[in-house]
Amino acid sequence: MSKVITPRSEDPARWYTDVVIRSELADYSPVKGCMVIRPLGYALWERIQGYLDARLKETGHQNAYFPLFIPESFLQREKAHVEGFSPELAIVTIGGGKELEERLVVRPTSETIMYSMFSKWIRSYRDLPLLINQWSNVVRWEMRTRLFLRTTEFLWQEGHTAHATEQEAEEETLRILDLYCDFVEKQMALPVLRGLKSEKEKFAGALRTYCMEALMQDGKALQAGTSHNLGQNFSRVFDVKFQNKEGGTEYVWQTSWGVSTRLIGALVLGHGDDQGLILPPALAPTQVVLVPIWKTDDEKSRIREAAALLQASLGRVVRLHVDLREEMSPGFKFNEWELKGVPLRLEMGPRDLAKRQVIAVSRLDRTKEALPLDDLETRVPDLLAVIQKGIYDRALKFRQDNTRPAGSYSEFKEQIESLGGFFEALWCGDSRCETKIKEETKATIRCIPLEGQDRQGACLCCGSPAQTRVYLARAY
Amino acid sequence: MSKVITPRSEDPARWYTDVVIRSELADYSPVKGCMVIRPLGYALWERIQGYLDARLKETGHQNAYFPLFIPESFLQREKAHVEGFSPELAIVTIGGGKELEERLVVRPTSETIMYSMFSKWIRSYRDLPLLINQWSNVVRWEMRTRLFLRTTEFLWQEGHTAHATEQEAEEETLRILDLYCDFVEKQMALPVLRGLKSEKEKFAGALRTYCMEALMQDGKALQAGTSHNLGQNFSRVFDVKFQNKEGGTEYVWQTSWGVSTRLIGALVLGHGDDQGLILPPALAPTQVVLVPIWKTDDEKSRIREAAALLQASLGRVVRLHVDLREEMSPGFKFNEWELKGVPLRLEMGPRDLAKRQVIAVSRLDRTKEALPLDDLETRVPDLLAVIQKGIYDRALKFRQDNTRPAGSYSEFKEQIESLGGFFEALWCGDSRCETKIKEETKATIRCIPLEGQDRQGACLCCGSPAQTRVYLARAY
Repeated sequence: MSKVITPRSEDPARWYTDVVIRSELADYSPVKGCMVIRPLGYALWERIQGYLDARLKETGHQNAYFPLFIPESFLQREKAHVEGFSPELAIVTIGGGKELEERLVVRPTSETIMYSMFSKWIRSYRDLPLLINQWSNVVRWEMRTRLFLRTTEFLWQEGHTAHATEQEAEEETLRILDLYCDFVEKQMALPVLRGLKSEKEKFAGALRTYCMEALMQDGKALQAGTSHNLGQNFSRVFDVKFQNKEGGTEYVWQTSWGVSTRLIGALVLGHGDDQGLILPPALAPTQVVLVPIWKTDDEKSRIREAAALLQASLGRVVRLHVDLREEMSPGFKFNEWELKGVPLRLEMGPRDLAKRQVIAVSRLDRTKEALPLDDLETRVPDLLAVIQKGIYDRALKFRQDNTRPAGSYSEFKEQIESLGGFFEALWCGDSRCETKIKEETKATIRCIPLEGQDRQGACLCCGSPAQTRVYLARAY
Repeated sequence: MSKVITPRSEDPARWYTDVVIRSELADYSPVKGCMVIRPLGYALWERIQGYLDARLKETGHQNAYFPLFIPESFLQREKAHVEGFSPELAIVTIGGGKELEERLVVRPTSETIMYSMFSKWIRSYRDLPLLINQWSNVVRWEMRTRLFLRTTEFLWQEGHTAHATEQEAEEETLRILDLYCDFVEKQMALPVLRGLKSEKEKFAGALRTYCMEALMQDGKALQAGTSHNLGQNFSRVFDVKFQNKEGGTEYVWQTSWGVSTRLIGALVLGHGDDQGLILPPALAPTQVVLVPIWKTDDEKSRIREAAALLQASLGRVVRLHVDLREEMSPGFKFNEWELKGVPLRLEMGPRDLAKRQVIAVSRLDRTKEALPLDDLETRVPDLLAVIQKGIYDRALKFRQDNTRPAGSYSEFKEQIESLGGFFEALWCGDSRCETKIKEETKATIRCIPLEGQDRQGACLCCGSPAQTRVYLARAY
């Protein structure tokens, strides 16, 4: 708590790291590129898990667990897949003191190991759809890492499904995209653009990748989750076949999709400020902190008694923490809980108690309000709903203010540098233009939106007739 | 479903594998020694996690996540620790296409990586106790593996705590042992013996290891969980120090403890029979299955309607599955749910419906009972409680019947071979006797019970004056 947070305006990258480290979300580990997720960061991950796990189970998915290690030869079976992942692999060559006959890859994703099992389990149309999800750690060797955003090891969920028809697989891919967007917008309070990835940016081995893209406060986009329609690319190489109702044999149609601990980085970048984290109430492990204030022993005993009553009443309706530590001043506690992003602070001193009230301070905008003690069980949840909406609305306004039509290519080049944000543009569909834009501006096609594809015009880059409307941005 | 389960009396090892595979708890994977945990097995693990996680949080523990990889040099710092784990390590030597400068061990347990962080986080007595838990995968290279019981990769929780005094660490070690025993006895319905491990059998790096030992139906013991008092062994080598209240500097006192997916193997071995799994209701993902029976379309519609009502009413008080599949006969379904260990089956046909009743069949002993439809919400939970107790009582009786005082050493040698089970014996405390017993009988000291250590007599093996009372058994 001794160091202050570097102001974001001064150095956005240091601001981010300061917030993550000082709020005790995470810490650097002695292993290059790997982080330690500390209790506050892990509690956030548990809330993400809890919500998504329940929604996935409601929609018929079952959890399972597949091996961490994948025989190297498995990855090589799907050509695009191995090309995509080869540069990032961690490889076990020694086990039990001996050189291994076949080297084992530490899973960067589990398509290959899972589908080798699917081919054993799936026999008939009656076994379909097979809807599997896995919560696990994965490893992708990264040269430049940043806490949560890009780490060699990260935690995620990966869903893998097999269907009898192409249409069912496409429906599943979009159902999950909706579920993800709903989570990120309603729980994380981050508005997202949804759409397709370009051929160049799609998942290695997929037919099509759908994604959701959020805008961070520094004007960079962040891919918050992806949902892939794999077609029959993997089922053909892993021989995942089924007997259809007519007695014929077909390859299954597959999907895979995932979100990761990267979402915690998005929370920091999307909502935080120079005081630290700002957590949306729906997701915050602690929604409300009560800081009691006293001077004399007599005041202390009365305030503590009132705090205990609040814990028993208000603590039933919201996730409340009563901070009774005696060695810290109220001011110190205010700063600490602001740093840790608790959405609502309640202050209660002797004069408040005499008036049968507490002072409520919103983390979003520091507005203060006196709330009657007897109404807290209804007023506090109402206030939390207002804060949740306020956080979302602020992020939405920021994105609206920072989404611009790309003018000429030279205007775009200037604006992406000076202003950042999303740019709406038209594109000819040629990957050479995509590459040129990336090389010259560091911006990439974040997504091809699913609606509004009837727009006519010329490609931003080459001026040829455009095929699609796209969103461009620099991204994490 | 085509193969039958090998009867246990014929081949206990094949019986075990048949039950695990056919009930779809798990499957072999293409990676040597690694298993796939299928949805039923994972649902059991989620129930184990749910219960333990809540108890650990209630007792002040926080979840966190540390890296999968550990620099090889870290393991080498604690001499006993590295000697214990060296033969079992999987080692990453290549990352991102390059040979690593320092080889990385895939964690076999996390003491070393965690305590290198503890030394950074802990400054003062105010930072203590530090109570951390991690849910994760670990890897120990095993030559002979068995599904759930001994696999190269397994899932577990590992708790790691740091305390200001030796006494607090000892209290924590025993608090967790109690919590574990309570879980295994009350939720898993398996009685356990608790006690200390001998010096030879204790955790590599610990001062003392406490354990709980359950008896399987084949007469072999199974270590169900361990809780280690690490003393200052690790804090000295990882320099985990704190400033005490008086301003002096001390090393912290530490504990670590864990249970793993091995517990699922204990459920199979401890309760299963020739029809398959028998799951205790407290832990069963599905507690009750309703199998509707119909012949005509008219019957079908009436029965389905009644089943829907039951789902809405009874489904609120117990974990109920209504099996409406049309392509399988009721008899097929009975067998399948018995195989999968569902504690209670309800059968409902047209005649039952006319009498406003269902037939309830217990998985424990197949007793049948007609239950009035209108009383199910009270009668079914009562029956589940009876089944839970019945499963425990049967296991307890089995253990009592198979726990014997060791007579002479030659009698013991004969009986451990012919009868199995636990043997209560006196021991001189010399590890040479312990080694001799193991070599000659394959039995090990499972634990040194915490009570009844005032017994006088001679060592089972050498006849010298005994120091301690012990339980001996062959073990998984």
